[in-house]
Amino acid sequence: MARRRPAGPQRLVVIAVGDELLNGFVVNSNAAWLGRCAADAGAQVVEALTVRDDAATIARAVTEACAIADVVVLSGGLGPTSDDRTREGLAVAAGVPIELNAAAEAVLRDLLDRQGRIATAELLRQVELPQGATPIPNSAGSAPGVRLQIDGTVVIALPGPPRELRAVAEAGLVPELRSRRGSLVTLSLRTALLPESEVAALVGPLEPRHPEVAVAYLAAPAEVVVRLSASGADPDELGAVIDRAAEDVREVLGDAVVGDADRSLAEEVVGLLARVGRTVAVAESLTGGAVAAAFTDVPGASEVLRGGVVAYATASKASVLGVDETLLAEHGPVHAGVAREMAVRVREMFGADYGVATTGVAGPDPQGDVPVGVVHVAVAGPRAVTAVRRQLHGDRDVIRRQVTVAALDLVRRGVLGLPPRTGAIAD
Amino acid sequence: MARRRPAGPQRLVVIAVGDELLNGFVVNSNAAWLGRCAADAGAQVVEALTVRDDAATIARAVTEACAIADVVVLSGGLGPTSDDRTREGLAVAAGVPIELNAAAEAVLRDLLDRQGRIATAELLRQVELPQGATPIPNSAGSAPGVRLQIDGTVVIALPGPPRELRAVAEAGLVPELRSRRGSLVTLSLRTALLPESEVAALVGPLEPRHPEVAVAYLAAPAEVVVRLSASGADPDELGAVIDRAAEDVREVLGDAVVGDADRSLAEEVVGLLARVGRTVAVAESLTGGAVAAAFTDVPGASEVLRGGVVAYATASKASVLGVDETLLAEHGPVHAGVAREMAVRVREMFGADYGVATTGVAGPDPQGDVPVGVVHVAVAGPRAVTAVRRQLHGDRDVIRRQVTVAALDLVRRGVLGLPPRTGAIAD
Repeated sequence: MARRRPAGPQRLVVIAVGDELLNGFVVNSNAAWLGRCAADAGAQVVEALTVRDDAATIARAVTEACAIADVVVLSGGLGPTSDDRTREGLAVAAGVPIELNAAAEAVLRDLLDRQGRIATAELLRQVELPQGATPIPNSAGSAPGVRLQIDGTVVIALPGPPRELRAVAEAGLVPELRSRRGSLVTLSLRTALLPESEVAALVGPLEPRHPEVAVAYLAAPAEVVVRLSASGADPDELGAVIDRAAEDVREVLGDAVVGDADRSLAEEVVGLLARVGRTVAVAESLTGGAVAAAFTDVPGASEVLRGGVVAYATASKASVLGVDETLLAEHGPVHAGVAREMAVRVREMFGADYGVATTGVAGPDPQGDVPVGVVHVAVAGPRAVTAVRRQLHGDRDVIRRQVTVAALDLVRRGVLGLPPRTGAIAD
Repeated sequence: MARRRPAGPQRLVVIAVGDELLNGFVVNSNAAWLGRCAADAGAQVVEALTVRDDAATIARAVTEACAIADVVVLSGGLGPTSDDRTREGLAVAAGVPIELNAAAEAVLRDLLDRQGRIATAELLRQVELPQGATPIPNSAGSAPGVRLQIDGTVVIALPGPPRELRAVAEAGLVPELRSRRGSLVTLSLRTALLPESEVAALVGPLEPRHPEVAVAYLAAPAEVVVRLSASGADPDELGAVIDRAAEDVREVLGDAVVGDADRSLAEEVVGLLARVGRTVAVAESLTGGAVAAAFTDVPGASEVLRGGVVAYATASKASVLGVDETLLAEHGPVHAGVAREMAVRVREMFGADYGVATTGVAGPDPQGDVPVGVVHVAVAGPRAVTAVRRQLHGDRDVIRRQVTVAALDLVRRGVLGLPPRTGAIAD
């Protein structure tokens, strides 16, 4: 049956399979990854849904998705256990039986041999595929992906564990999408420490000047991403349209723009330090390791991060970092002077070019007479020490994330010679 | 129109609204929270979907959801900007016009007054609701939730930012679900350092003994949650059924069970240390702050965590922690002896009862002749020092998470006097 589609990028529907996602025991991070993966390949996820581990439900969802999508992608339910029902659901949707797929079986047996494992009946369930389906190799696990056509729509099933999903998507989904490439061009800028309403108030007035460009604002604690997109016929022309808009956006947002949203703020700061050949050390109280962990999340962080101290107990600020005991006794640990000394001392301790420090009250309870949300962040560089006090709002987790962003941004500003941002950072 | 429902728990359909979710710029953590929220209130999410910021699409999704759900919950699209289309979508689905809701307007103007802000036309869009809808107070922001009935189905729209979603859900959704309470009883156990296939092989044979209980396995790096659930008429009877099954599961899994899945492993370890009145300090190399951050994520961590050192650069292991330079020169930083010394030294440095240490190669590149995935974790307690070597598999992020779990679990085992687990920890 020939079908007509609207022009533009390929339309994807993504179906996540798993009771655990509906029950909230697992956060579906695959959906976001698949969304970005599709956009990178010039396609667009037009709808995403999550269904239970039930073959009839999976089959109904696939059938409905085939009616509106060019490509249907499933995630999860390809493993060896009895609650893995995706293969069966696909067979029902396609109206074909399940059968042992010889090619997939050979690959699986070979893998198990190499691992010295037995090919149990349970493990072999993974290669019982709908008749006519093609297995997609899984370099990160034992369950192959599955590709089949239903009524002219390509359906691709990926394993649920994120590493395996990505491996199988790279092997089978990305090439499929690239071969069908449409034209959607996007560019996203990451900003730090500016409330979403302020970002929108600055960028909004530019919108009439760029009518082909759609703008979206995506807020995380202390970070807002401005996403620009345009779709149409000519990718080169769209690229130029987006670039002109991005230039205007960068101009109105100034030094609040930390870079491209593809990279995390920590990646930007690690890259910046590496480019100028400088190193950093971290002294943390309320962030308790989160700033160091943000740095060390970045591959190659060892080039710039010397190390850090988590001085969580007040006494350890004096005994380990060497912060002046009189200062601590007089003002307590949540104080600009303490933050400054922490930054200076950790810089010396690790022989780093920059020291950055956090202290404050993450909650849930106030600390003595200091209310929840009062924080101090300081950076000590080769020439100067800068400290910023803030009153933040939100729960413990939000406050810790905001302070982590503030600390990373203060290092960035120290290296670039920019003044610290001191205004409100959230609506 | 009267409608008949299957007996059992209330059925929810959750509709997330937002291009940013489909594009993958934001991970939809609300879905998981709503799933748990529903389960806690004795209800069940039977399907979840994500749709674009488009009123007609939202209306269609709501109409379809009303056909299968007792309660339809939307998240997102209630803000003040032009891409917030949920109110409009609800009005289309209900076949009513949008109008300024006087009660909601009064609340909003009062809030803005107190914040010293102007009631702009944009902000007032938030209180233009479908005719006949009831606003639900939002204690965490300016956009009220919306409640209305469509063809006898209750539809509740919540704001997208997680803090606001939770506040409005507590105010409007939870009471709604509790008043309609069905009977679904669940219990989830968290295990550490056991591969999913091994957990399933141990638990699987119990399933015939508990035919009323559904079992699901949810794997994260180095952790598997075993979820038991049963639905039916009598909650007390279901509770007894689940408890009997849980007892058997605990028995076969032994000390791999770290506790209830409602609590993170770090929460368990913090609680355990607090109960026995012991403290801990952390020395990290490849985890780079992630173990300390896991501890300090837990409210009340200050009772047990003294602090830590991120000795990322090899030199800092000697200069800051005081690890023997000859040992480092002879064996390099990835070595059992180095891990042991790190644990011993950080324990002394912070005056803690336990010191825990991590060193290894997270990748992406090998470190000298040590391949990616070789790690050592050590714990030093009042009586003994224990170190475990592992060869892990996966990318940088997976390896760091696995080591974080291994470090937390080693502290738990140290406190409880259990031997360390040494086998494979992932399939």
